[in-house]
Amino acid sequence: MAVFERILKDPVHDEVVVEDPWVWRLINTAAMQRLRRIRQLGTSYLTFHGAEHSRFSHSLGVYETMRRVLYHLDHHFGWPRELRDRRLALSVALLHDVGHGPFSHTFEKVYEFHHEDWTRRIILEDDELQSVLGEQDSTFAQDLVSILDKTNQFPIIQQLISSQLDVDRMDYLLRDGLHTGVSYGSFELARLIRSLVLDGDEVSVRHSALHTVEQYILARYFMYTQVYLHPVTIGSDVLVAQILRRAQELVRQNTLPASLIPEALSVVLGSFVERLTVKDYLSLDEATLFYAFHQWSKGPDALLADLAQRFLHRHLLYPIVCSPPSSETMAAVRTCVRAGGYDPDYYLSGRTSGIAAYVYLGEGIQMMLPTGRREELSRMSRLVREMSTTEEYCLFLPREIFAPGSEMGERIQRLLKVSVVPQ
Amino acid sequence: MAVFERILKDPVHDEVVVEDPWVWRLINTAAMQRLRRIRQLGTSYLTFHGAEHSRFSHSLGVYETMRRVLYHLDHHFGWPRELRDRRLALSVALLHDVGHGPFSHTFEKVYEFHHEDWTRRIILEDDELQSVLGEQDSTFAQDLVSILDKTNQFPIIQQLISSQLDVDRMDYLLRDGLHTGVSYGSFELARLIRSLVLDGDEVSVRHSALHTVEQYILARYFMYTQVYLHPVTIGSDVLVAQILRRAQELVRQNTLPASLIPEALSVVLGSFVERLTVKDYLSLDEATLFYAFHQWSKGPDALLADLAQRFLHRHLLYPIVCSPPSSETMAAVRTCVRAGGYDPDYYLSGRTSGIAAYVYLGEGIQMMLPTGRREELSRMSRLVREMSTTEEYCLFLPREIFAPGSEMGERIQRLLKVSVVPQ
Amino acid sequence: MAVFERILKDPVHDEVVVEDPWVWRLINTAAMQRLRRIRQLGTSYLTFHGAEHSRFSHSLGVYETMRRVLYHLDHHFGWPRELRDRRLALSVALLHDVGHGPFSHTFEKVYEFHHEDWTRRIILEDDELQSVLGEQDSTFAQDLVSILDKTNQFPIIQQLISSQLDVDRMDYLLRDGLHTGVSYGSFELARLIRSLVLDGDEVSVRHSALHTVEQYILARYFMYTQVYLHPVTIGSDVLVAQILRRAQELVRQNTLPASLIPEALSVVLGSFVERLTVKDYLSLDEATLFYAFHQWSKGPDALLADLAQRFLHRHLLYPIVCSPPSSETMAAVRTCVRAGGYDPDYYLSGRTSGIAAYVYLGEGIQMMLPTGRREELSRMSRLVREMSTTEEYCLFLPREIFAPGSEMGERIQRLLKVSVVPQ
Amino acid sequence: MAVFERILKDPVHDEVVVEDPWVWRLINTAAMQRLRRIRQLGTSYLTFHGAEHSRFSHSLGVYETMRRVLYHLDHHFGWPRELRDRRLALSVALLHDVGHGPFSHTFEKVYEFHHEDWTRRIILEDDELQSVLGEQDSTFAQDLVSILDKTNQFPIIQQLISSQLDVDRMDYLLRDGLHTGVSYGSFELARLIRSLVLDGDEVSVRHSALHTVEQYILARYFMYTQVYLHPVTIGSDVLVAQILRRAQELVRQNTLPASLIPEALSVVLGSFVERLTVKDYLSLDEATLFYAFHQWSKGPDALLADLAQRFLHRHLLYPIVCSPPSSETMAAVRTCVRAGGYDPDYYLSGRTSGIAAYVYLGEGIQMMLPTGRREELSRMSRLVREMSTTEEYCLFLPREIFAPGSEMGERIQRLLKVSVVPQ
Repeated sequence: MAVFERILKDPVHDEVVVEDPWVWRLINTAAMQRLRRIRQLGTSYLTFHGAEHSRFSHSLGVYETMRRVLYHLDHHFGWPRELRDRRLALSVALLHDVGHGPFSHTFEKVYEFHHEDWTRRIILEDDELQSVLGEQDSTFAQDLVSILDKTNQFPIIQQLISSQLDVDRMDYLLRDGLHTGVSYGSFELARLIRSLVLDGDEVSVRHSALHTVEQYILARYFMYTQVYLHPVTIGSDVLVAQILRRAQELVRQNTLPASLIPEALSVVLGSFVERLTVKDYLSLDEATLFYAFHQWSKGPDALLADLAQRFLHRHLLYPIVCSPPSSETMAAVRTCVRAGGYDPDYYLSGRTSGIAAYVYLGEGIQMMLPTGRREELSRMSRLVREMSTTEEYCLFLPREIFAPGSEMGERIQRLLKVSVVPQ
Repeated sequence: MAVFERILKDPVHDEVVVEDPWVWRLINTAAMQRLRRIRQLGTSYLTFHGAEHSRFSHSLGVYETMRRVLYHLDHHFGWPRELRDRRLALSVALLHDVGHGPFSHTFEKVYEFHHEDWTRRIILEDDELQSVLGEQDSTFAQDLVSILDKTNQFPIIQQLISSQLDVDRMDYLLRDGLHTGVSYGSFELARLIRSLVLDGDEVSVRHSALHTVEQYILARYFMYTQVYLHPVTIGSDVLVAQILRRAQELVRQNTLPASLIPEALSVVLGSFVERLTVKDYLSLDEATLFYAFHQWSKGPDALLADLAQRFLHRHLLYPIVCSPPSSETMAAVRTCVRAGGYDPDYYLSGRTSGIAAYVYLGEGIQMMLPTGRREELSRMSRLVREMSTTEEYCLFLPREIFAPGSEMGERIQRLLKVSVVPQ
Repeated sequence: MAVFERILKDPVHDEVVVEDPWVWRLINTAAMQRLRRIRQLGTSYLTFHGAEHSRFSHSLGVYETMRRVLYHLDHHFGWPRELRDRRLALSVALLHDVGHGPFSHTFEKVYEFHHEDWTRRIILEDDELQSVLGEQDSTFAQDLVSILDKTNQFPIIQQLISSQLDVDRMDYLLRDGLHTGVSYGSFELARLIRSLVLDGDEVSVRHSALHTVEQYILARYFMYTQVYLHPVTIGSDVLVAQILRRAQELVRQNTLPASLIPEALSVVLGSFVERLTVKDYLSLDEATLFYAFHQWSKGPDALLADLAQRFLHRHLLYPIVCSPPSSETMAAVRTCVRAGGYDPDYYLSGRTSGIAAYVYLGEGIQMMLPTGRREELSRMSRLVREMSTTEEYCLFLPREIFAPGSEMGERIQRLLKVSVVPQ
Repeated sequence: MAVFERILKDPVHDEVVVEDPWVWRLINTAAMQRLRRIRQLGTSYLTFHGAEHSRFSHSLGVYETMRRVLYHLDHHFGWPRELRDRRLALSVALLHDVGHGPFSHTFEKVYEFHHEDWTRRIILEDDELQSVLGEQDSTFAQDLVSILDKTNQFPIIQQLISSQLDVDRMDYLLRDGLHTGVSYGSFELARLIRSLVLDGDEVSVRHSALHTVEQYILARYFMYTQVYLHPVTIGSDVLVAQILRRAQELVRQNTLPASLIPEALSVVLGSFVERLTVKDYLSLDEATLFYAFHQWSKGPDALLADLAQRFLHRHLLYPIVCSPPSSETMAAVRTCVRAGGYDPDYYLSGRTSGIAAYVYLGEGIQMMLPTGRREELSRMSRLVREMSTTEEYCLFLPREIFAPGSEMGERIQRLLKVSVVPQ
């Protein structure tokens, strides 16, 4: 029983198995543990109450999926031969999201930076991570980054962690499906893994698994249309974005009291992102933002306070699915919103959200034919080929405008040619 | 399609169905929404990474379970006849946990108050809740409280929400089991509900469902022994308790800078719990505590900083399961801990945790015999009768003390007659 | 507790609930019980070992699905108002497959009759069924048949039991998926049911459930491509067909000893299907056929004996997926098969199998737009629209022909331009 | 991709993996394939309609469970080292039930033979099996039998296939639970397997898995009390027994026409079991018995015809759970039954069924303590220790006797002090 083994019970994969004490040390770094305080699906929990799982749980799931893929590839294709390659694959799976911040995509958009940059910096600069990664060898961290940067030095691992068919997606479709309580994300993980073929540096899928791959692509399609791009969720993201924008504006105007700016946020809000250290960044989590929202909800700026309260108490912006309005219509709607007592810069927002369930230009999934030739998936599957990029336009504004008898509400409905159901 | 209906997808019950717009308004109060920011299982997520679900999700689940119980009782026993009784039952299910604070039981123990008191105060004092509950009638809120206070004015609802066989437990066993990824919490919910018998004011269980009830009792037994009382979780609770105690001490000594005390916590830490308003209390959530931990981890008090860092980065106290040491042994261990450089008042702690899977004195589950007579469960089931109260003693201290070669570590192992496995 | 209730535990729906003693009597008729001895998926269990469930289990599942649909329609649209309509819907769900014979489709094809005719005759002629159905009223059985005959007298029930979106398919996709152990058949049953809209006599689906319907259509697509039309299964059906054809031929030639013809089969094999009574037919089940196969496998006709043994011991015909051969190629293959020692009339067979996952000409699924207008599904869903009719050609012949070194085997592979992997 | 691999989708284990072509050949023997025609749970499908799975599916599941156990033992304890041991373990898992007949236990009891004897004979005498087993080596088949005979030559394999904690039970609890639709049979298979410890020749369980083992023992307890010993199932078995007894009696009296005796049954019914060849025995399956029941249901002996019809149409004997009647009471009940028009020798039958969920005398489950000492499970678990042997008495007789107004029915109810609910 001298074999090292740590088993973590997991609601998706049943068990996450750690067989290498070095991996165990990676999991126990502060950088990884911080991901426990960042939800995997951002504000989705306001639409699907079960979506409360963290990026930490997802990262463990990606690791476990990679572990199973390696087991298959080792058994059938004798790869990886070296422990170092194995560790590269496992640790890139664990660490691929380590740079994500709270409400990740929204936060990034407002403050103009990229979690990918932070992932890179954390891997290269965080002392504790450096120490564990350095146990392997001195160029290991740099090689990890090169995989994330897609420099093609480690093509197999690169395909496994980030392509149209990668362990990241395999885990999140299943995990997000389980927690939101929908059945859309389901596909045959074990069979998909078993169908992977390694031919030189190319990962492809045995042609006999065509329908299994179709099922996986459809899982993506359904999860996007039904969950990730749910109008209520997008409306919650819009609200967070407006809160962050307003706070930034107040800081720029120097009108937000310092006591209301959590330390970890001050550099960000001051728009000095370039001064942000890795240490600062690692202390940014959802708790910090929620605490700021709490403070702001009781602060002096009425607009910021209202936006923050709306988010905390889930009085979200109301989504109106409609055709994208012309600029004249939009101007007219703005006038109505303003007349209704709301600043349209903060309370009116339109968003187009779209998703390509499968991208094949340049990076499609390769199927391995019995002849040994590879063919890109969409050439074999009409289902995949014709799966359109879906796009939907949505306008967000306060529900109160549509209170019964509201003149402005009536006018907006006429302008947009929609009818809003009273709650 | 004029029928009001809101469906919430749920990972446990598939669907949570809201058929009454009044219930929908209750769900959307700030008091309820706050529960989204309090984890159902406190620090358990540090042991079972999937245990990240909130008290909000659980509360919806309790509501849904109650809804199904009412459907059964209505169909078979014509109860409830009145909409008011139905609403009492549904809203007590929704609101039963509304007074829970962050890391609930630990928080309460250190600061000496009870979440039950807060549940009562919130129901009676929160303006928004008062308004929605008052829509029904002016004595409704008071009646809700009387159910929670077990004054026996609404005996059926009281039994359904809080007894040895109640909808609260039915939901949490299933929900906690799903998220932790264990299969222990499983029992036949639908059959259990269908077996409920109403005889006057007494809720009992049809005798033919004896084994289904046994299964439910065993689910409790296993969830306690395997999940709720897991030594690593208890160690995490101990750590939180020490952090809160240290912060309180520093506040009393006036040595914690005000900037490090989140507003919502200041009254609590100042030990003026009696001055805490409902509004203050409702702004206490896990984000506030995590933010405080972040601040303290970088603060001037080295002890508090170390404890807070340990928690944030999951360097937990190490649990040693052993027989409860004599006071001499304990004194000797304290000496070792101190000699190892740790203040034993904060770094050494023993806990006995126990659980009675089933309590039958006074409040046992009543089985309905074919004769129409009721009999208490443990008289019918030897399995339940003999299910012992399990107790386990555990000592918690820093793992570092047991680093290879540590003299103090060796000594403690000898004193306690245990052997600590190196990580 | 005077309410009648029978609960049957079910692996798919958890519980099948019978609330009407009349339905209970229907379930307990000999005609229904016979379906326990006929597998739902014919010979599929030779491909997917778990596919051992019967048409009886499926029929209960269709009943339960209909019961849930009726609950929804009653709650939201006040239909059905009459117990008689309710019973028509529930009993047509129970009885819709009552005329199925063993290895249904194969049996029918060889002996040229239709299970639909037998369903009709059994409902109208079986004494026991007549008696239970007659309890309702004297024209009830005839009305049941009129629904199955699609005479449009009961348009709602007709759409629910047999259309592109019916309770029959809802159950079999889920049930067959569970037992075969694949995850393809999964869709959100509860949501699909809740989305049904009744508008006059028209059943349609709320437009907001578009993706749920897509998911259901895709479940069909995947179950057909992956399970129902699996080449090994089709090969098993071909084998059964050849056994039945050979036996019929021998009976016509009067060379099959009477002792080898089970009584229930004698009329069928004698090609006097028109003389077959309902009573005779009801004694035909898979046991009868298996018994006949046992007898024939030891009988005097070497060809029949070999075919029967192949089936019993699962030495199936080998499927070669290829382009449909030209008639010259086919003639050449026949010559090879004969030269290899096999009568090509029995040992060589080609099949094209295809499936339209969704048929919209004339009978498409209607979606209910917010405007109250209905639109056919494929006009709203590009995914559904483009889902092609898949077709696959497959040639079946004995695997032994391809034994290593077999000249005929080599020649066939060259003729068909395929390569057969040795077992 | 030259690695041999066959994957069978499985509803319980997701995938059954065959990595050894020799195992694949074993699976494809006629002896194994026959198990597809014998239901795993005999007549249980008449109580739980989903219980239609075969001994073939179970045997594959036992094989797969053994394969996973071997993977664990190999990884952690370096056993088995030899391919031969591995094949012994896998093939004994596959073949352990190969001697089961239709309605196994009932059939055996009436005709006084043991399936264990037939398993032994089939392994040693069937030509095809001999040939595949002989590929390994000439003493392999004999060694297989020695494991089943518990001669202790292969103690590890013997414990794994047949002990209080064996792969046979692990599979059937999960499989039977899934198909009957109950949740009782559930336990943590993966964790249980991972807890197995090999110490010399002794298989034990790591002490930390105590509660996992308790859960497994309880799964047995619940499956027995709720499923296997369900009174309706026992009543079905009693009915089959009476049919077989009656047929045997008629054959002895030479009054059953030869045309009504299926060939495969004639030796059995003639009580010349000793003349039964392996070949004869292998042609006995449920189809043969069902066919016989069909024939007998239309045959000249009224008693046999009635019993056979009852079984085919599920007019089962009615179970009355009561205290075992005294011999006087029993005599009085017999008189009533006879007066009611039924021969009590065939229509009245009492059965005591009991189950010890765990047997520890001599063969208990050994737990491995941290000290390296082993301790028997019941000494560590009060729950297991006190789990009583349950026993229940049940009397079976025709339901018709209790028709409303039946004098004999009333009298029997008074005699037994029970009240029979009208259907």
